[in-house]
Amino acid sequence: MISEVTAQELNPEAFISEKVEGIRHAVGDGLAINALSGGVDSSTVTMLGHRALGERLRTVFIENGLMRAGEPERVAALFRDLGVNVEVVDARAEFFGALRGVTDPEAKREAITQTFYRHVFGRLVRESGAKHLLQGTILTDVDETVAGIKRQHNVFEQLGIDPQEAFGYKILEPLIQLRKDGVRKVGQALGLPAEVFERIPFPGPALSARVIGEATPERIETVRQATTIVERLLCNYGAFQYLAILHEDRVTGMRDGKRDFGQQIEVRCWDSLDAREATPTRVPFEILERLAAEIVGRVPGVVSVTYNIASKPPSTIEAV
Amino acid sequence: MISEVTAQELNPEAFISEKVEGIRHAVGDGLAINALSGGVDSSTVTMLGHRALGERLRTVFIENGLMRAGEPERVAALFRDLGVNVEVVDARAEFFGALRGVTDPEAKREAITQTFYRHVFGRLVRESGAKHLLQGTILTDVDETVAGIKRQHNVFEQLGIDPQEAFGYKILEPLIQLRKDGVRKVGQALGLPAEVFERIPFPGPALSARVIGEATPERIETVRQATTIVERLLCNYGAFQYLAILHEDRVTGMRDGKRDFGQQIEVRCWDSLDAREATPTRVPFEILERLAAEIVGRVPGVVSVTYNIASKPPSTIEAV
Repeated sequence: MISEVTAQELNPEAFISEKVEGIRHAVGDGLAINALSGGVDSSTVTMLGHRALGERLRTVFIENGLMRAGEPERVAALFRDLGVNVEVVDARAEFFGALRGVTDPEAKREAITQTFYRHVFGRLVRESGAKHLLQGTILTDVDETVAGIKRQHNVFEQLGIDPQEAFGYKILEPLIQLRKDGVRKVGQALGLPAEVFERIPFPGPALSARVIGEATPERIETVRQATTIVERLLCNYGAFQYLAILHEDRVTGMRDGKRDFGQQIEVRCWDSLDAREATPTRVPFEILERLAAEIVGRVPGVVSVTYNIASKPPSTIEAV
Repeated sequence: MISEVTAQELNPEAFISEKVEGIRHAVGDGLAINALSGGVDSSTVTMLGHRALGERLRTVFIENGLMRAGEPERVAALFRDLGVNVEVVDARAEFFGALRGVTDPEAKREAITQTFYRHVFGRLVRESGAKHLLQGTILTDVDETVAGIKRQHNVFEQLGIDPQEAFGYKILEPLIQLRKDGVRKVGQALGLPAEVFERIPFPGPALSARVIGEATPERIETVRQATTIVERLLCNYGAFQYLAILHEDRVTGMRDGKRDFGQQIEVRCWDSLDAREATPTRVPFEILERLAAEIVGRVPGVVSVTYNIASKPPSTIEAV
């Protein structure tokens, strides 16, 4: 049973001291490793681990080919400015190899999880000699996994999996008593810049969760380009989350006066407090039309763009 | 080469007299048959044929199972009030049989065309003894077929098909010199009520063109229910056309707090003068949200609703 620490009762400095001490005690004079995604949770755990272990924490950013445009460079530069060395590991070929022919959403997540832990990260851990893995699991991840709503890759113990036996390393989860607002306070106290907290949530399987059907390099590139346009045009509406989804269904379009089957991008933009309930943001129609015009004009193969108008529930924030 | 008669130069009474005469001359003392869909073109040709031939024109409404809710009853009642007897023929089993396992949009159209002409209508023609078929082909159909934009089922001659040889009857197309606005004037002069002209356009393959993928009875029923809601809520925005499309892609939804893959309905509502160019109607967000709430609340299996925001071109009015 995990005892929650609410953001209200949280004393960030005391929390940081306690967790730094805990990490040092667990790791001893060994090495630790962590994978940074650039999200709030993994960024905070990186800063915490760095404070505890300094150079004895190896932080890797695994370029899986499924990130938003410019993401590895952006994250590495941000942490370089904070004095933390981040090693970018190019594992695109391995991830796309594992995703080849996989269309089921759960099977895609599983392929990414397995490639990440068993292959890419497993190899990095063995090479590094690290026996501890720092992870940014938070309490909401545990709740949602237990409830069966979400399948998180980073809550092995709650699922009855022993990571030491399965993967050869021990997992430390120093943020597991916190929810998002608590993590934010801790991250700020550790010196993370506002940019980290202003980023909208991004799913674990990254852009592979933004394509319905197979996540090929070409399809990921399509949704990546659409995502860049969506994030640029929808960043000013105070939305909780906004995203582009590449559909597998083909729809009719016109090219040079002839019928031509093309692809469709669905845009979702959500107003929400905590992701449990959400409604579509009432984005002005001129912006929606500009969004559609830019996507069909700039993203090859896309002829149609839709905007989500359903609420959660029964919809969910992400499509797959 | 067909010589166009524009709506401006059209004298409806003279046109009707000329075509009535033409039909009488062609049919002689034989019988003719026509299939009424309830659209402007087939309704006008029904009235024209009825004026020319009276009881010697047999008008059938083929219930193919792909119509909007209540459509056969509505059309039959409307013409009964005009003194025209319409025979409703239940051919649902034949159409769904032909559509089983067919997912390609062109193949679906072809299955419907073949079932209609070769099987159902062919049989009715043979049984009736009619040697002439009256059809509501208009000039725009011809243009679009020749241009390769649209595949019309009712322009055999333009495609080099001899219907007498292929199907055993001769086709009369008394409206072929007109465009939509001309047909409207002729229909009004023939006594058709406003209701016929106020109906929004509906595609030839009916609701099978409103499902992406296989047109099973269940999937057609899903899109039929969504169509009823869409037509009720969007009829007051002066739109050119509005429609519901059932996608084949599955998206995540929530049922009783658990993840559940469900279906998605796409709504399109178009502002357009002539269908050549079109933009999405700026329907108020509260209406779009109500639309989505009614669809997910009332149509079984649907968890997500989107609204089209792209323009034509490169989109098209219909999705398949």
